[in-house]
This record gives sequence, structure tokens and C-alpha cells, in this order.
Amino acid sequence: MTSAQRTISREIQLAARPQGEPKNSDFALVERELGQPGAGEVLVRNLYLTVDPYMRGRMNDVKSYTPPFALNETMTGGAVGEVVASGADGLSVGDLVLHDRGWRTHALMPAQAARKLDIQPGVSPSAYLGILGMPGLTAYAGLLEVAAFKPGDVVFVSGAAGAVGSAVGQIARLKGAGRVIGSAGSSEKVAHLTGVLGFDAAFNYKDAPVLQQLRKAAPDGIDVYFDNVGGDHLEAALSVFNPFGRAALCGAISQYNAAQPPSGPRNLALAVGKQLTLKGFIVSSYSHLFAAFVQEVSGWIASGELHHDETVIEGIENTPGAFMGLLNGQNTGKMVVRL
Amino acid sequence: MTSAQRTISREIQLAARPQGEPKNSDFALVERELGQPGAGEVLVRNLYLTVDPYMRGRMNDVKSYTPPFALNETMTGGAVGEVVASGADGLSVGDLVLHDRGWRTHALMPAQAARKLDIQPGVSPSAYLGILGMPGLTAYAGLLEVAAFKPGDVVFVSGAAGAVGSAVGQIARLKGAGRVIGSAGSSEKVAHLTGVLGFDAAFNYKDAPVLQQLRKAAPDGIDVYFDNVGGDHLEAALSVFNPFGRAALCGAISQYNAAQPPSGPRNLALAVGKQLTLKGFIVSSYSHLFAAFVQEVSGWIASGELHHDETVIEGIENTPGAFMGLLNGQNTGKMVVRL
Repeated sequence: MTSAQRTISREIQLAARPQGEPKNSDFALVERELGQPGAGEVLVRNLYLTVDPYMRGRMNDVKSYTPPFALNETMTGGAVGEVVASGADGLSVGDLVLHDRGWRTHALMPAQAARKLDIQPGVSPSAYLGILGMPGLTAYAGLLEVAAFKPGDVVFVSGAAGAVGSAVGQIARLKGAGRVIGSAGSSEKVAHLTGVLGFDAAFNYKDAPVLQQLRKAAPDGIDVYFDNVGGDHLEAALSVFNPFGRAALCGAISQYNAAQPPSGPRNLALAVGKQLTLKGFIVSSYSHLFAAFVQEVSGWIASGELHHDETVIEGIENTPGAFMGLLNGQNTGKMVVRL
Repeated sequence: MTSAQRTISREIQLAARPQGEPKNSDFALVERELGQPGAGEVLVRNLYLTVDPYMRGRMNDVKSYTPPFALNETMTGGAVGEVVASGADGLSVGDLVLHDRGWRTHALMPAQAARKLDIQPGVSPSAYLGILGMPGLTAYAGLLEVAAFKPGDVVFVSGAAGAVGSAVGQIARLKGAGRVIGSAGSSEKVAHLTGVLGFDAAFNYKDAPVLQQLRKAAPDGIDVYFDNVGGDHLEAALSVFNPFGRAALCGAISQYNAAQPPSGPRNLALAVGKQLTLKGFIVSSYSHLFAAFVQEVSGWIASGELHHDETVIEGIENTPGAFMGLLNGQNTGKMVVRL
């Protein structure tokens, strides 16, 4: 390598903070010239980028558990890439790495911030952005630890066709749930949940009020609710919970684009008499479960007992569209961008 | 005793299910003639009756953790009385007993349903309806077990001048809270909280928005919220919670009279990023703590470290008024009726 070598990275920056639903003009595609890696650095060509619901929160300029994205800077997020130049011991050209410099085609970065992947045969590198990555651990930790799942529980999960939700439902099934119920936003997704993923019941929340459909799907009530969406789903779960029910609050995608604060669940007072527990969580607090998670979930993938889907969008220029589509439910399973 | 002896009991029945705030015409004072106790029964002359917020829920005809009161039947609730005739071994005339046949001057009942009290010197029998009874155990279990209080926690309690709230704040102080904050509905109650009960800060929720006053009282946030009222207090607590904050949901007195479902907390989604736990409970699930509770709290009462107040209303005919006053916050500490 010589210092004269230059690489053009195409990158997505946040051009404006979205008001309500993000639109194309909130994003800008820019080109940046990268030099060669110095000592301890690597140059990575990204193969897959992830878009995730939590990123919507980082586009607002408010204090949260992660700092906001800066305007007119390249955004960040999970990515899997191939090392194309290395100035670091331990990482060589051709190695596949997982890192957080997403939303761009190339990244010049400290080797310490990249984790070398030992890809199993038959597993796509993109799985490390989904079922074997953050969304998978979110499902695993949220169900088993946060919601204190036990065999026999009736489990309801919203956003059930998404990366997290589809893992929640299947892990519940594999761990001996009494019944697994999912909601999703299209009849195709509903058919996929019961036909492919092994859910006992599923419904399209756009067909009729959630409460009405959930009561029908869960005639004996529910014990665990894994909440990916908030809003009317949480309210319905509160109504249908059995005594000592537990909700893992993972996200509220129905509210991420809300410019006005949404109304909260009007029936939260039911939590007193039913002795319910509602527990919010973020996956980074459960990294101590990562090893057990990878071992158990890898086994289910290898045996074919756990199915994982991806919706793949092509091209860096389509990353904002992939993200907007994710917020509108245009994905089944993990939404990724292939470069 | 002879079977010809008759006792007139004056009793309060539910004449109509209240719509919104209860009113006098929802209650009826009736007289009933009681005979003498048969084998295994006792006749009790009640000395003190309790009125408690949970009773409002039982006046509605909805499924809850306790069955609804029946129309045109005498209501029930805690009472302390004196045995005036006994057909049972183990209970003699003159014994003081705790039982659940309240809302009446006399009760003819199975001896098994009455618990003999061994009243400590200097303790009023009515204390067994309050600080040494269900409200005291509610405070103790809710703070220490449900909210998992630990020394150093900043604790906020609403309805802080009530029977439960005043015990919560003082137990938190005695257990080493970093700071104890209470809200109440009058300037007299606020002065009592900081002047007599040892709260670090208190405010009148009618003076200004709860959130604004809570932020000022808790500049470093709160770790525990003991919720007696629901509504805007819960919403404010969610906003001010520190990461990993815990709410014990004990009641929602602000909503008990609501004919329409109230709006829920609009900021419940904060529970995700802050990793909050909201846990509803009812005291009957924590009876295993009763012995430890009585021992610890009796010690604090004896040493003078824990203060307990009563608001005493006189006469069976004023029991509905005492109950309505309770819902409107006309009590400081435990509201009881003396007969």
C-alpha cells in the first residue's frame, strides 16, 4: 500500500432532523475520500448494512440512551465488511468483520472497533446483523430474562414478523410456550407466522381492533407480552393479561414518528389488581448473555428448528429508503442493505 | 344468654352503584336484628371501622381482584370490635378482635373469621386498621419488596399524607433513603410531611403541574416511585426517573371516580430507554412478610421514630361521608370511623 492510494466512500449523512415520518430530503448521499490505514487501523469495504428501529430515536435531538446523530455527519450503525487494507496485527486483508461504521460503503477505522467473524458454513455474513446479532440477543434476553418466561406461558409478541419479533416467537415455541401469538401488518406476514415460523395464532392488526383480535387469539389470556410497538397493542395486552403477567418493553415503533406525544394506555391501572410487571430494557444491558445466546440459537439454526428471514435492499443509495420502509413495516424479518 | 336476646345492628348498604363520585343516595343506613351466637360464633360490637380507597372499585360491577359489593346488602371491610357474646372456644366476652365485617355496628360471625388482638400498651385498637394493619403492610411490602428499595435511593411517594403514603415515606427514611419526597393535596399536609414525618421535600400537587414541582424537589432524579394516585403523578415520575428506576403501582385514586377511562401516561415509552420497571401489586400477595413487618414497625412506633396519624370520624351514619371524604383527600393518615 502507498499513502497516495485513495478510496472513495459513498456515505449517507443526516441532512435534517425528521419531523414525524422521515423523508428523502432528510438524508444526503455524499462521497468522501479515505486514505490508507495507519498503524492499528483497517480499511473495510462494507458488504451489509443494518437499519434498525432504534435509529429513528437517534435522529431526534433529545437526550436518550444513545446520543443523537449529528447533522451533516455520516450516520453510524451495524455493518459487516471485508478488510481490504490493514495496518493492524490480527486483522488481514480478506477477513470478515462486524463493526458499527454503517451507512457507508467503506470505513477507515481502529482495528479494535472491529470484531473478526468466524462465519459458520451455510450462514450468511448478514446473519450477524440479525438473528446472531443485536436483534437476536434482544429477543433472547427480553423473553427469557426481562419477561422471565417459563414453560407453559402464553406469549404474545407484536411486530412479530420483524427481526426481533420473529425470533421471540420461535424461541418461545422452542422453550415450551403454552401458546405463541403474533401480530403483524399484512396478511402475507400473518400467513408466514403461522405457516413457516410455527406461531399458534397470528392476526393482522389493520383488520380490526387489536383488543378484539387478541381476545379471540388468546381465549385463556396471556402471560407474557413482548412489546415492539406500544400504543393500542400494549393497551390490549394489559386488558388480556392473566394475573402476574409480564411485559418486556422493547420499543414503540408505532410512536417513533409521532410529532405529538401519543396517548398512553388508558387501562394501566389494571396493572395493580392483576399484579402485572412492565419492564423496559435495552439489549446492551444483557451482553452477559451473549455467549449462551449464540450457542443456543446457533444450534437451533443448524438443526433447522429456527427460521430466519431477511429483506434485502440493494445499494448504499437505497439505505434511507430501506430505513423508511422498515418503519412502515415493509420488511419480513431482518431488514438489511447489501452493497 | 338466651335465644330471646336480640341486638339491633345499624348497617350501611350499597343502594346504587356510584356513577363517578359517590353521593349520599348511593348508600342506605338500615337496621338489622341479630340473634345470639350459635356454636362457633361470636357477636362483636364494633369499635372502629376502616374506609379504604380500594373499596371504590368494589362498588363497580366489574371483575376485579375482589368481587364487587352486592346491591342492597351490607358492605364489608376491616373493623376492630369487642366480643359481647361468644359461643366459641378461644374467644371470650371482652376480647378485642380484628375482622372484615365492617360498615356496621355489630356483627354475628364465625369465630374463625375474627383474629384476637393482643394490644400493646399505648397503642389504639384502631392502629390495627392502619399502621399495623393492611395499609402498613402495603407500604412495607410495596417499598421493600415490590420496588426493591435499597439504601441511598431517592424515593417519591404520592398520596404521601395518607395511611399508606405516610408509612412509605417514613419507612424509606428509616431504611436509609438518599432523599424522600412526597406530594399531597393541601399546604397543611405538605407542612406535616416535612415538619412532622421527616420528608426531605414535599409539595401540594394543586399548586402547579406535578412534573414542574417534582423536578424541583428531585434535582438528581428519583429511583423509586410509590404510586397511590396514577394520572399526572405517574407521568411525572416516568419523566424524572433515573435509569433502572422502579415504580410500585399500588393504586390510582385519581381515577377511581372516573366515569370515562382516563388518558394513560403519554411518556410510557421512556420506560424502554431508561430500563424502568413498573410493578402492580396487592397486599394480600405479601402476607408472608406480615411477621417481619409487625416486628419492625412496632419497634419504630415504640421508639417514637415512626409517627402515625388518624383522621377519626364519629358514628356509623357518617361512614359514607368518611369514605367520600377519603376519596377527596380530607384525611391526614388513616381514615377511620369510631362507633
